[in-house]
This record gives sequence, C-alpha cells and structure tokens, in this order.
Amino acid sequence: MKKITILGAGLVGSLMAVLLRKRGYEVTIYERRSDMRAGGAYAGRSINLAMSVRGWNALEFAGLKSELETIAIPMYGREIHNVGQENIFQPYGKNNEAIYSVSRSELNITLMNAAEALGAKIIFESKCIKTDLNTNEIVIEHNGESTTYNCEIILGTDGAFSAIRAAYMQMDRSDYQQFYIAHGYKELSIPAGPSQSHLIKKEALHIWPRKNYMLIALPNIDGSFTCTLFFPFEGNPSFESLSNDETIEAFFTENFPDAIELMPNFLDEYKSNPTASLVTVKTFPWVFQDKSALLGDAAHAIVPFYGQGMNSGFEDCATMATLIDMHKDDWKTIFKEYQKLRKINGDAVAQLALNNFIEMRDKVADPLFLERKKIEKEVGLRFPKQFLSVYEMVSFSNLPYHEALSAQHAQDNLYQKIVGHHNNFFENLNDENYQKLLTQWVDEYVSELKN
Amino acid sequence: MKKITILGAGLVGSLMAVLLRKRGYEVTIYERRSDMRAGGAYAGRSINLAMSVRGWNALEFAGLKSELETIAIPMYGREIHNVGQENIFQPYGKNNEAIYSVSRSELNITLMNAAEALGAKIIFESKCIKTDLNTNEIVIEHNGESTTYNCEIILGTDGAFSAIRAAYMQMDRSDYQQFYIAHGYKELSIPAGPSQSHLIKKEALHIWPRKNYMLIALPNIDGSFTCTLFFPFEGNPSFESLSNDETIEAFFTENFPDAIELMPNFLDEYKSNPTASLVTVKTFPWVFQDKSALLGDAAHAIVPFYGQGMNSGFEDCATMATLIDMHKDDWKTIFKEYQKLRKINGDAVAQLALNNFIEMRDKVADPLFLERKKIEKEVGLRFPKQFLSVYEMVSFSNLPYHEALSAQHAQDNLYQKIVGHHNNFFENLNDENYQKLLTQWVDEYVSELKN
Repeated sequence: MKKITILGAGLVGSLMAVLLRKRGYEVTIYERRSDMRAGGAYAGRSINLAMSVRGWNALEFAGLKSELETIAIPMYGREIHNVGQENIFQPYGKNNEAIYSVSRSELNITLMNAAEALGAKIIFESKCIKTDLNTNEIVIEHNGESTTYNCEIILGTDGAFSAIRAAYMQMDRSDYQQFYIAHGYKELSIPAGPSQSHLIKKEALHIWPRKNYMLIALPNIDGSFTCTLFFPFEGNPSFESLSNDETIEAFFTENFPDAIELMPNFLDEYKSNPTASLVTVKTFPWVFQDKSALLGDAAHAIVPFYGQGMNSGFEDCATMATLIDMHKDDWKTIFKEYQKLRKINGDAVAQLALNNFIEMRDKVADPLFLERKKIEKEVGLRFPKQFLSVYEMVSFSNLPYHEALSAQHAQDNLYQKIVGHHNNFFENLNDENYQKLLTQWVDEYVSELKN
Repeated sequence: MKKITILGAGLVGSLMAVLLRKRGYEVTIYERRSDMRAGGAYAGRSINLAMSVRGWNALEFAGLKSELETIAIPMYGREIHNVGQENIFQPYGKNNEAIYSVSRSELNITLMNAAEALGAKIIFESKCIKTDLNTNEIVIEHNGESTTYNCEIILGTDGAFSAIRAAYMQMDRSDYQQFYIAHGYKELSIPAGPSQSHLIKKEALHIWPRKNYMLIALPNIDGSFTCTLFFPFEGNPSFESLSNDETIEAFFTENFPDAIELMPNFLDEYKSNPTASLVTVKTFPWVFQDKSALLGDAAHAIVPFYGQGMNSGFEDCATMATLIDMHKDDWKTIFKEYQKLRKINGDAVAQLALNNFIEMRDKVADPLFLERKKIEKEVGLRFPKQFLSVYEMVSFSNLPYHEALSAQHAQDNLYQKIVGHHNNFFENLNDENYQKLLTQWVDEYVSELKN
C-alpha cells in the first residue's frame, strides 16, 4: 500500500486522514499553522459552520457522527428579522429537518484528535514551499529549515490558497479561475444571557436581510451567537462608507435595532475585527496521474452562503474513500474516477452558493418568496417521491449538486405553472380537477428534470 | 522623473522602452532569455505576426514605422484552399487595405536595437523570481546569483506566464482566469521556390479551413511560408490520433493535398516540431497604486486567431505613453486611467479572438459567409460613415475593441433584415424604394450601436 502525504490538517485533511488510517494507509500531514490545540486562540476563519446531511454522512462513514452530535446545535429554519416587524420563522424542510451549527475549531480539533488516535502523524508549522508534480517531491519549511520529501501519494487539502494547486496551475493546459464578490464580511457577536442562555431563538439561523447586505447569527453551545455582517466593500452603505463611530452607530441603529440591543460590544468589534473577502476558485484538473489530487477548498473554494463549503469537502473525502475501497491501491483509477465524479459537482455547488446569497440577503424578506416556499412544501408533501426543493436536495439529500443546480430551472417552470393558473393554489387543493392538473405539472417537471 | 524597470524585452517591453526613452525616462529591462541577436536560433514562439492598423499606429508614434515597413509583407485578403476546388480570394477590406506579415524575431530585434540606441539598458538571462508589490522590490536571478532591486516604477511586459502577475494574483480581491482551448498548434513550412520566389500567392493569408481544424500560411520575405496547423489535441482526427507516419501522411494527403505538394519536409517537421497549447488569460487589476502595471500578454493573453495579440499590446504601450504625456510623472493617475481605458478592451479582444477561430476554420468555406462578406462590403461602400464591418473595426481602425465586439450583434441584426427581405440584395440596389429601406436599416443599425 502506498504511503499518503496530506498537505493541510484542516477539516478536510483531518477527516481524510481518519478515513485513510481506517483503511490501513500510513498517513503524514504537514500543516502550515501551529497546533490550535496548544493555544487558546484559534487561527483562521471562524464563521460558524452549518453541517447538513452530506457532512453528517461523511462523518458517519468515518465513525465520528455520534461524537460530533454532542457539539452540534440543530437549526430548523431561518428566523427573519425585519425592522419594526415581528420575526418570521421559515422552516428549512417539510419534515422538521435541520442543519447544525458547529464551531469550526471544535470540529477541527475533534477530527485531528481522531486522526492522531488512529496513528496519523500531524507535523505542524510545516509550510509547503515547492511541489514538483512529476517527481512528487515537496519542499517543507519547518523551524527555518527546508527539507525535500519524495512522496508516493499527495493529497492537497490546503484550502482556498493551496500551495500544491499553484503547481497544478502551471501545468500546460490547466484551467484556473479565482474571483471575489463585491461583498466582504466581518464577525460580531451576541454574548450569552444568564446561565449560558440564548437571548434569541436558539434552534434557528437568524437573518437580518437588507437587500444588498445582511447580518446573520448562528448559535453556539455556550449561549452566545456568532454574527457575521456580509456587506459591500465599496458604495453606500459599505465598509468604506462607515468610516467613524457616528456613521457605524447610526447605521446599526437604523438597520439592526433589535440586534444591537443584544450586542454591547458591536462598535469595538466592528472596529477591531478584520474585514475579510470572499473568493470562488475553480480549477482543472483536480488530479495528476497516480500521484496527487486536490480535495475541498483547494479544488473548489466557494462562498459560504449555502453552508456547503465543509459539506462538499467532506463529500469529496467520502467519495475518495469509497473509490479506494473499490479500486484498492490502483491510484490512477481512483483519481480518475474521483475527478469525474466530483469536478462537475464542485462547479455546481460554487454556483448554488453564489445564487443563495441573493436569496438570503434579499428574497427571504419578500412575501412572494415566502408564498413560494409554502407552495413548494405542500407540493413536496403531496409528491414526496417526485419533488424535493433545491434547498432540500442540497442540504437534506445526497443527490449530486449538479442535479440540484439543474433542477432550479425546472422548479421555476413548475412554479410559473402553479401561480400562472387563475385559481388560488391552497383554496383549490381539494378540487379534483385541480389535483389532476397539479399531478400533470409535477409529471412534466419530472420529465424536464430527466432531460 | 521616476526610473522605470521593465520586466521582459519582448515586443511590448521593447516598444515601451523606446516610448519611455523618447520621453527622457531612465529605463532598465530585465529579460529572462539570452539575447536572440547573439545566436542564430530564435527562442520563443514563431507564429508569424499579422500587423494591422493598431500596431502600425503605435510604431509610428514611436518613430519606427518606416524602418519596419521594409520587413513587412502586405496581405490583402484570405486565400481559401478547399479540396478539389479553385482557391477563393476574400479581400479583407473594401478599399484594398492589408494586414502585414512580419517575422516576430525580426520585429523584436529591431525594437531592442532601437531601445538600446536610445539608451535603454537590457540585461539578458535575468529571471525575476520574486516581486513584492508593496515595497516594489524584485529579486532577479542572473548568472546563478540573486540580487534584490528596489524599483520606482515596474512595468510587467513578461508575457502570458508573467512573473509579476503571480504577485498580483495573490493580492486580496484580485481576479484571475486562465483557460486553454481544446486545440493546439504545430508549425510547418513551405520552402521558397527558385530565386526566393513565393510558390503560392505572396500577398495573402492562406487558409485551409476544415471545419474543426485548419492550416494557415503566412508569407516570409525569403520566399518561404510559415504554416501553422491548428488541430484538436484529442478526438478524431487530432494530434493524439495521428500517431504514426502512415496516419499522418494519409491525413495530409486527404485534407491538404495542394499544400503537401509544396512541403517536402512536412512529415519530419510534423514529428519534430513541438505541439503547443493556446491560452487565454484575464486578470484584474492591471495596475497597483503608483508602483506597477501590466501590459500586453501579461495583462491579456489571447488566442492568435484575430492577429491582435501584438497589436493590442502595442496599443497598450501607445495609450500608456499618451497618458504619460498628459499626466507627466503622476503615475497614480497614469495607471488608473490606463486600467480604465484598457481593461475593457483586453476583455473584448480576448472574446473577438476566440470567436474568430470559428470564422477562420469553418465559416470562411461557407458560401453564405462569402455572400455576407460581399453584402457587407457593398453596405460599407454605400454608407462609409455609418458602417464598418467588425473585421474592419478591429484591423483597420482605432475604434475600441469593446465597440467592435458589441457591434457584432447589431451587424447580425442588420444582416438579417437584408437577407430576410424577399428581394435579392444586389439586383435591387438600383431600386429607389429598396435604397430607402436600406438607408432605414442602416440608420436602425447606427442607433442600436449607440445604445
């Protein structure tokens, strides 16, 4: 069996190490950062993660699901905060399904611990400064010294700014794209109430949708919420335009009055926390011969608006492990099949994530959107085998992302038929002729999906 | 006045050096390769260049036009070679305009000589291995030694795989895209006839259009033609499928019978010459503060099918020089204006070049396309102020590329009106009512262009 070198001990690298150790592979991980378990402060991004079915399935495959369920908070829907109105709760699924708020650092620590307990070696403060794809030699800088290692198999799980991907990019006929959206983000927080109580609804993902920007909040186990402001870099209002205490306070008071009541430190946090950017990365190929492959953000960095960054990376790991089981040590076939199965889905989830930003920051506040959600729920309940909403496909199923993306158009057509009909949907559901019509529309939807 | 450091002594870097020396700037160029004037063999790409109006204008601005005219061969149109048919000549312009076949190496040598004669320093075999955009420090590797230089202004003219652009790409919020088309190219040649005579029409660009692939030939001063086969990498037929002498010979005999009669060495050339790939690169930003900028392929590498790679790079230089004249040593303004004027045109010429591949390899052999060309010529002659074909806009005018790209759609609409009319265009040109109709359509075209 080949020895495996993993670049990056983040979520995807650590989970892949667990899956490989369970299959008997020798695994060494080089991680650029220091061991986050040593210090109190966690480096890197801290946007809370929303674990959905794909993530859970991969964790179950790795035997880690039950351990991680203890640190996950279910969120059954979106709690929408409009100015001067009652909050509106929009359930995510029709059967009480949830996505789960998980702390990135807790999850990463659990995965690293599991990998090490199974015998994987993680070497921290080890920066990959050079990769030769043909010889599979990597140069690792550690404690100021550079060492060259000759690897049998390299798995690149080193994130959106992957070092090994730089070598992929320089290959002849290698395609690459990175682009940033016009919005950045900044973290803020709602502290816990008395006795670690949650001061707003615990089991929901909170959104303050404001058309071109939004604030969101995800619950933490200690009673606090991690909030994120997604906001344009330039324009009015923007990170640029809020240039002093007065403009910041006035902006929050006007647009997030109920939130800042719960955020005693928002001004300090706003000023001291960094403003970060949001990149999408597409690249091809994802694999090189029988020598190396990219997984997770290294292969497909996406914006966070569908909560699918980690979920899609975990699905990469599960697919890779399944292919290893099927093709044993035949890495040429494993990698070829992996790329064939996953590249199309990496592209699709990138697009779904970009699309969902508009849904979260704008559409969720639109009564027509709420109406559509209700109709989709009813259609899904009546036709459970034929109809899953795109959100359900992405978050509560294992269907390939590319199928969810192409279903979007077919669902728009179905919805147009429903609202284009002269009678009211809910009033007419008991009418037999209407039921026949609806069945016909759903059949047409299914056959459109298949084409 | 700031001192200027140029990375790359290719066509664009050398022309920019000439323009800067004429304005009194101190100029040092670091060039990765050795001096092509020293050896007989020229490194780098040797696709012949097709100089058109934009290139000539920039050379005239630099005072080099008359010198270069002596090594340029006018090509007044396309000579189309179909199997078993007479050749068809398609003039490029309606007023006998030409594009000019120029040897890349001759042009480069002339430009380097001119830059040095004006006092620019070119240091060869100097590879830029690191760039710090904030400090404007570059590390140059020369004769095995690395030296750090602190630069005032850096101009990156180091081509499609630009070293300085790698630093741009790593900036936060920097967008980047590279993609390869499915076709590669291979050079072949038609030797000169007796007394340096040209064995096929000298003053034309020869095309053997074969739908999904093509062979082209451009004349050289010594009587030879440089031929280029643009061919898919994979599929049938492709570089991959022609795997031995028999399949190569059979393919050329079947598809290029008149060409191989003139190519005694095509089999050896086919086997020994490299197969090269074709990349498009888009990047943003093109400039950094008042410190550095990208020009030519470093900013916008494009496929060669419109013959605009060098022309657009030279236009970058002329624009930069004009802005220097306007804003003197105010580099922040110069760079900002340069990016604003040129980025949109870099994107447009990239798209025009991709579109023109389909025109060259497929449409030029289509009788309907020839008919359209004739109609466009007639419309252009009758409405010289209102109508220039897209080809004329790109090759025989200084109109911004983005205007040419957006004119494509409006010209399609105009053409649909002409051929959609029940009467024959040429037969009815003397009819007064038809003339009025045509005038109306052209007016509609002009107003569509303006919107």
